[in-house]
Amino acid sequence: MNETSLLTELIDALSCLPSVGRKTAQRMAYNLLDKKREKGLMLAASLEKAMRNIGNCSICRNYTEQSVCQLCENIKRDKNTLCVVHSPSDVLAIESTANFSGQYFVLLGQLSPLDGIGPEEIGMPLLSKRLTQGEITEIIVATSSTVEGEATAYYISQVANQVEQNNSDLKISVTRLAQGVPVGGELEYLDQSTLALSLANRSHF
Amino acid sequence: MNETSLLTELIDALSCLPSVGRKTAQRMAYNLLDKKREKGLMLAASLEKAMRNIGNCSICRNYTEQSVCQLCENIKRDKNTLCVVHSPSDVLAIESTANFSGQYFVLLGQLSPLDGIGPEEIGMPLLSKRLTQGEITEIIVATSSTVEGEATAYYISQVANQVEQNNSDLKISVTRLAQGVPVGGELEYLDQSTLALSLANRSHF
Repeated sequence: MNETSLLTELIDALSCLPSVGRKTAQRMAYNLLDKKREKGLMLAASLEKAMRNIGNCSICRNYTEQSVCQLCENIKRDKNTLCVVHSPSDVLAIESTANFSGQYFVLLGQLSPLDGIGPEEIGMPLLSKRLTQGEITEIIVATSSTVEGEATAYYISQVANQVEQNNSDLKISVTRLAQGVPVGGELEYLDQSTLALSLANRSHF
Repeated sequence: MNETSLLTELIDALSCLPSVGRKTAQRMAYNLLDKKREKGLMLAASLEKAMRNIGNCSICRNYTEQSVCQLCENIKRDKNTLCVVHSPSDVLAIESTANFSGQYFVLLGQLSPLDGIGPEEIGMPLLSKRLTQGEITEIIVATSSTVEGEATAYYISQVANQVEQNNSDLKISVTRLAQGVPVGGELEYLDQSTLALSLANRSHF
């Protein structure tokens, strides 16, 4: 036992970070103590602030410390297209493509009745209310291509249908991300389902 | 810009951890916000405590929040052998072998006159004082096998010599870690100097 108890505590705490094991946590702790005490204190302060103050946007449910996030506040963005994603990090991924300038809606989960995650938990009432307001004309469903993701996508299309039926003057088209061969992907390493799908959905030059 | 400013701040702060780039920091921040707010707060608290309260042992200069560390306090450890290492993480490495139960002395640096690190900075006066007390009969110099490490090792042997000369009743032997082929190492991948050294220092079966 040559570790002081505070050091052991710090190493344990650092191990809670994703993909940080005990060995890496040890290295991080020693590194901070050796040369970066100031930075360590700054990290402590901003962790504390972030964990306590970051909540969800009241419109799109993305992370923000205000009541409405910067994306929803931005008047330059297209008001008619809504991209529905699983998590705040998906928003970041789509924003980084710089190919979408519409609105977002973050589900903060995926339909999974067995885990007690139903329509309420993934914000369907809020989405339905937003669609009823009439600004949205297209929903791009960008959930993951897993069983839960597909179920969630199907449910969202049903919600949009429902809103259309209740408001006869609304027309909402529901689209989804294209599936197929990833850019730079080699055919021989691609799984059968993706390959079959990209064959079925082939497009003209 | 879909990141809240607190989130950006947190991501920047996390990037100060070793081998954590912006992408990993992003993933860590979202992971903590998604599922581990409590753990994030605990991490903040123990970072703060560790950065403020962990100092150096007054005897061996290892990290501790007390004035004397657990290793120096441990009366079961051999009082006559002193292992001199570069940093507190080296102490951890040697302790993990469970093959050494003597005392430690942590240099907290390596002799490097160009960077302004002289004998004072690596605690030579403290080491010299400790040797004069007469308990230590062997110094194991476990500095790294670099130019600075070798220079530091040489300096330490000189300090030991000096102490011996000033106190005629003291006899301090200075040893160093064996150099050679690492366990599990393949000869073809070994560098020439190590191989040459392990040939020169070959031992009987």
